[in-house]
Amino acid sequence: MALFKNIKRNKPESFSDGNRDVLPSPTGFSPRQRIMRFYNTPRIIGRMSVVGKKEAKGPVGKYFSKCEADDKLGEKTFERAEIRMFDTAVRGAVRDAKLEVDDIDLFVSGDLLNQMTTSNYAARDIGVPHIGVYSACSTMTESLTVAAAMVDGGYFSNVLCAVSSHFATAERQFRYPLEYGCQRPPYAQWTVTGAAASVIARNCKETERFPKIVMAIPGIITDFGTNDLNNMGAAMAPAAMDTMFTLFTQSGYGVDDFDMIVTGDLGKLGSDILRDLMRRRGIRLGQNYIDCGNMIYNVDQKCYQGGSGCACSATVFNSYIMEKLINGEFKRIAYLATGALMSTQSCYQGETIPGISHAVIVESPFGGE
Amino acid sequence: MALFKNIKRNKPESFSDGNRDVLPSPTGFSPRQRIMRFYNTPRIIGRMSVVGKKEAKGPVGKYFSKCEADDKLGEKTFERAEIRMFDTAVRGAVRDAKLEVDDIDLFVSGDLLNQMTTSNYAARDIGVPHIGVYSACSTMTESLTVAAAMVDGGYFSNVLCAVSSHFATAERQFRYPLEYGCQRPPYAQWTVTGAAASVIARNCKETERFPKIVMAIPGIITDFGTNDLNNMGAAMAPAAMDTMFTLFTQSGYGVDDFDMIVTGDLGKLGSDILRDLMRRRGIRLGQNYIDCGNMIYNVDQKCYQGGSGCACSATVFNSYIMEKLINGEFKRIAYLATGALMSTQSCYQGETIPGISHAVIVESPFGGE
Repeated sequence: MALFKNIKRNKPESFSDGNRDVLPSPTGFSPRQRIMRFYNTPRIIGRMSVVGKKEAKGPVGKYFSKCEADDKLGEKTFERAEIRMFDTAVRGAVRDAKLEVDDIDLFVSGDLLNQMTTSNYAARDIGVPHIGVYSACSTMTESLTVAAAMVDGGYFSNVLCAVSSHFATAERQFRYPLEYGCQRPPYAQWTVTGAAASVIARNCKETERFPKIVMAIPGIITDFGTNDLNNMGAAMAPAAMDTMFTLFTQSGYGVDDFDMIVTGDLGKLGSDILRDLMRRRGIRLGQNYIDCGNMIYNVDQKCYQGGSGCACSATVFNSYIMEKLINGEFKRIAYLATGALMSTQSCYQGETIPGISHAVIVESPFGGE
Repeated sequence: MALFKNIKRNKPESFSDGNRDVLPSPTGFSPRQRIMRFYNTPRIIGRMSVVGKKEAKGPVGKYFSKCEADDKLGEKTFERAEIRMFDTAVRGAVRDAKLEVDDIDLFVSGDLLNQMTTSNYAARDIGVPHIGVYSACSTMTESLTVAAAMVDGGYFSNVLCAVSSHFATAERQFRYPLEYGCQRPPYAQWTVTGAAASVIARNCKETERFPKIVMAIPGIITDFGTNDLNNMGAAMAPAAMDTMFTLFTQSGYGVDDFDMIVTGDLGKLGSDILRDLMRRRGIRLGQNYIDCGNMIYNVDQKCYQGGSGCACSATVFNSYIMEKLINGEFKRIAYLATGALMSTQSCYQGETIPGISHAVIVESPFGGE
């Protein structure tokens, strides 16, 4: 019982009391130095984003590299379809970087399925040394963090990162199989069907025209007591707040130093909660803050709070955001993917949903200073 | 279908033909440079291993730091018990390193449960920035690899690694709940109930008396076509062979340069397969090769092929092996944990089981040159 009591210590007492004052610092927000700085300038030299039909019809649809018309991609199962989509994204990113698969030294990837099936089975086919990472929908920034450290630390020259998610496989695993036809509550989000990959490479003459990863912040697992498997925005917002607060207090950058501050898949509700939480801590997020979950679907697509899943922010990052970094429209962005670390088993056993948010700061090759 | 066909390309044609000649190099074994060398000498300064009753009665029982008499640890569910065991190991390792939890900069961990429930829920309570890694039973060496790179690369000073597994939670998830009373085939292994943690720290005057991690080899996912959820030794042996072959061909060390070469949890059958596979590739493993799965239980404990699970090799490494490294009895060891990356879902869908094996080379502070 002591353990149980301990576990909820991250929940600040004044969370739901409507108090508009700045919150006292809850225990979870430690003053430890958390920022990783990459002085050897790892670059993102290749990328690919593959999405399903629904995502291609959304507001950022035209930026994605490839749209799959059929959610099953002609495979027998949705799981096989996800593997194939993942494979397409990975090989596409390698091609985009003008490399061969044999030039890749390490592959860092993850996905939402149990035992990371998609990523492990796809990696088997690709045959590159593999590091499996998992932090739910925050996996893209986790893998970018690990990859950047591996390149920046001088261990490898070319590291591949990839994630995927699929609406049908995620619904079956976390909620109900689609065939049951269950109703979705108005605060639910829609798991993005898609896969995205990036190639991180050492800084050199050939790669200096590509965007660089300058910092990363590994997230702390935060839990404010949400226990509804459908309401993930609320579960993840506190984690995003923690990482974002660390960013603004430890990096030396303020809100206005970024052309865009992007969270992963908080959705409409979650990003409103985040704005509110940040305001209470004295930081006002302006027009340059967006949430990928909030922008990936149109309002008339019936996705309620917006998109979610590993691929939600990963596909938007590897298309829309990277394009604007490459052409210099964005000088510096902060990308904070957010993950809800729930498992159906633990929720059945009465547990709440912890959230995590890893961040990376990416700068355009054209300035950023 | 093309993808399906592609996927089994790692299976060498002459695998089951009883041919005793050295195998031709299958496609999976690429000549890419895979060894990570740590020149800044990350040290393992703290460790703890917690096991269940059955493990404590085995041949290495006396080396473990703590034995839990009750598999449920007084908790309501086996899952809660696993979280508590994990927590004990982590806090014990931090204490062993003469540090406080607040001194830890990063926590790298994983476990066998879906969405890494144990490790994520325990990390929530610990409140340290968290990187979740997964490669099934090979997770300990994967987390040591990532942690060593984070310390060696200069990003953090103290990084914690931990893994856990539990017989009851693993059986329920991967096979059948214990209550069903299913029979186990003679080639089955027994998931170790336990948790282990290590603290990796920067090299300095205070830490120079501790064992150092000098190299790591991230594993390639290998699949020779095993599809029986009970026969994991056979599924993992090819991956261990691939990593071990890379070790002997790229590190400059031969079999005799190690006081001990340890694989994770191949069990009796799997380690025999590995010896055979290595012999076919021209390398003869001698008396200094052991398998943790093979040594953790006595023959009369009815565990058939021996132990398995993340905690199998992790507890043996953090007790028996680390003790002999600290007292100088072992000068240099190679630790190759092995993981079977199966998911029940993919096996129901007719997939085979891929394996992976990450390796770390650890040297005693007393020489090793």
